[in-house]
Amino acid sequence: MRIEVLCTGDELLSGLTTDTNSPYFMGKLFDMGEKVARSQTVGDVREHIIEALTSVRTRADAVLVSGGLGPTADDLTAECAAEAARVRLIENAEVLAELKARFAKRNFAFTPNNAKQALVPEGAEVVRNPVGTAPMFIQHIEGCTLFFVPGVPREYRVLVDREVLPRIAKMLERDRSRVFRAARLLKTIGMAESHLDARVAPLAKIHNRVTFGFRTHAPENHLKLLAEGRSQQEADEALAAAERDCREVLAPYVFGADQDSFAAVVGSLLRERNATVGIAESCTGGLTAELLSAPAGASNYFIGSAVVYANSMKERWAGVRRESLETYGAVSKEVAIELAEGARRECSATYGLGITGIAGPTGGTPEKPIGTVYFALATPQGTQSHHQALFGDRERIRLFAAAHALDMLRRHLLGVDFKS
Amino acid sequence: MRIEVLCTGDELLSGLTTDTNSPYFMGKLFDMGEKVARSQTVGDVREHIIEALTSVRTRADAVLVSGGLGPTADDLTAECAAEAARVRLIENAEVLAELKARFAKRNFAFTPNNAKQALVPEGAEVVRNPVGTAPMFIQHIEGCTLFFVPGVPREYRVLVDREVLPRIAKMLERDRSRVFRAARLLKTIGMAESHLDARVAPLAKIHNRVTFGFRTHAPENHLKLLAEGRSQQEADEALAAAERDCREVLAPYVFGADQDSFAAVVGSLLRERNATVGIAESCTGGLTAELLSAPAGASNYFIGSAVVYANSMKERWAGVRRESLETYGAVSKEVAIELAEGARRECSATYGLGITGIAGPTGGTPEKPIGTVYFALATPQGTQSHHQALFGDRERIRLFAAAHALDMLRRHLLGVDFKS
Repeated sequence: MRIEVLCTGDELLSGLTTDTNSPYFMGKLFDMGEKVARSQTVGDVREHIIEALTSVRTRADAVLVSGGLGPTADDLTAECAAEAARVRLIENAEVLAELKARFAKRNFAFTPNNAKQALVPEGAEVVRNPVGTAPMFIQHIEGCTLFFVPGVPREYRVLVDREVLPRIAKMLERDRSRVFRAARLLKTIGMAESHLDARVAPLAKIHNRVTFGFRTHAPENHLKLLAEGRSQQEADEALAAAERDCREVLAPYVFGADQDSFAAVVGSLLRERNATVGIAESCTGGLTAELLSAPAGASNYFIGSAVVYANSMKERWAGVRRESLETYGAVSKEVAIELAEGARRECSATYGLGITGIAGPTGGTPEKPIGTVYFALATPQGTQSHHQALFGDRERIRLFAAAHALDMLRRHLLGVDFKS
Repeated sequence: MRIEVLCTGDELLSGLTTDTNSPYFMGKLFDMGEKVARSQTVGDVREHIIEALTSVRTRADAVLVSGGLGPTADDLTAECAAEAARVRLIENAEVLAELKARFAKRNFAFTPNNAKQALVPEGAEVVRNPVGTAPMFIQHIEGCTLFFVPGVPREYRVLVDREVLPRIAKMLERDRSRVFRAARLLKTIGMAESHLDARVAPLAKIHNRVTFGFRTHAPENHLKLLAEGRSQQEADEALAAAERDCREVLAPYVFGADQDSFAAVVGSLLRERNATVGIAESCTGGLTAELLSAPAGASNYFIGSAVVYANSMKERWAGVRRESLETYGAVSKEVAIELAEGARRECSATYGLGITGIAGPTGGTPEKPIGTVYFALATPQGTQSHHQALFGDRERIRLFAAAHALDMLRRHLLGVDFKS
């Protein structure tokens, strides 16, 4: 079965708007073990849309077409769909009645261009849109099914989930010859993509029913395993075997799988232990706190963070000694340790994290170049520290430093501390 | 002149990797006043790539093809380009020599699959890749120019900037009949897209040489103006007139244009006044500090932020009175004011910002539902405060709250304070 995607909209071709709809659909399809064969985007130009619709249906069994269903003049999709199918555009009475009711309820005037949204190609199946005004419709032409949905992300997602994917799932069931697939995403932190690749390369040869793919999602690197088999059981077993071997060679860098988020994993480990955290951070500028407090329920383990950009605040909020600042410099192992211990003490927390470094683009020295970051973790058993030489721009250094600080905590909670 | 984009790569069709290359190219082209007519992505499948290459050249004058130029088995682009053009694949001696030198320099073994990267379609113009191993090549077929570049973002960007865009600029110069264009992006904060749209709608009718477009880049909304004319001067003048009128109806929501970043604009205003800021933030979890400290040189104006998640820290780091917490609750106007004044005092800063609210997904009450956020700004002349009822999920509420706090500061610095 061949599935394609066709997006319409000038804004997607100007570089100003990124298409987040298609990755959403592709990801859901991938979870079902299927992949889109081609994705294309055309502007709001009548002949381009018609040409794309006409050619796509000669290649594909199912097409998801999005955008251009609104009420304005540059919303051309319905009329192009009619023209490409050589049918008339007709007014759908049910849709029109619902549109009018919707407007009346909100006391909005119903203008002629609003009625435009009730026009659909003759013969198309019309599907109600529960979250917007533009209806979805489906065309069946010469063995190809075309799903037309609005481009507004919220409407797109609801209709893809409730209407498009279930219909595609049924089409797949009928498709007897299909290959069965199973997928797993293993998420790592603290490991460069090239190292990840090198470590699992020997396994890719052994597990020849499984495709190994890589994705960088800074600061994480993900390993994507896609197993294929002649039955679902065969695919599941091939995946389980590959996953087991990969986890073995990648531990302790693997923090989670599939939908897991790094911050939520760290949060869960803390909650399981009834532990709390206080932070004192300098070069990360609040990002460490922001990451740790992003998951819902973070107040169970996150007490606070002193974002101590100025040295005066390192003293005032984290109790760093002026002497240490003067003797070792703000970016030093000693100050990182005092920050961590100060944060733990001030917050009366189980753990304290201290981060100090040089994010750039200025401020580097030959001894401490840009990217030098010192970390410390204060625990009930004592304080550990180490430093990293991070590369990249200011944004990257801040992100990797914040993630590394939280990873120190994660590894400590799992009993696999970094070496100092 | 018709320009198209063709990306290859299975990873772009799985929903796991988002194509950031094409928006980069499209954005640069847009700055030159040109727009891509169609963008498409195909997987690493020989017949799909050949079909796409064959059909695209019948439509387009210039095509940017990316991906699939690496040394591995699923890198198929060069051989498909040869087959689509019905020419042989030949080894380029210069490229091969350079590849070998590159490997020797790094003491890497040169294996047969590395030599694959020296194979290019016969008759193609080969362009050196200064940042990677895969060369770029250019095919001229029946009036269509196809640029083949690697998909690795760093290599893609360097080659697009240095090799592809200058050649396209020359092609445009030769294209006498072309329309001249000028573009401006006006960036607003604190204004919903529908309000932005409604406010400029009357102007769009007056300025009929200018296309008005909208882009949401949360928490900002951007207005894109694209003017067309028969000469560059005509386009520039039409743009300037539309921009002037838009700025007039949108002030003080417009914080900048084109490449301006919100945080950097706030930072510049502070630097111009030699002013400094301290923050005490609760529900935003460090995000306000992170945004404000993101631009290079933030240490000139950012002193620190107390991320006071627990009430104990609101007392300890920001001097909030226990009585206020008990009487009014942590999420209250009174506590926001004490946070702002405490941050200003603790940091010895010109300004203090205080933020406290309910980001959800739990913790709302009938009186203070999720999304209730109190803000205060302490200044040398006194303290102002107000509250907002934000909607959306936890992430959105945190983002809009942090941005709103900084916008209070921006507007105060410009003398256009929010009403309390």
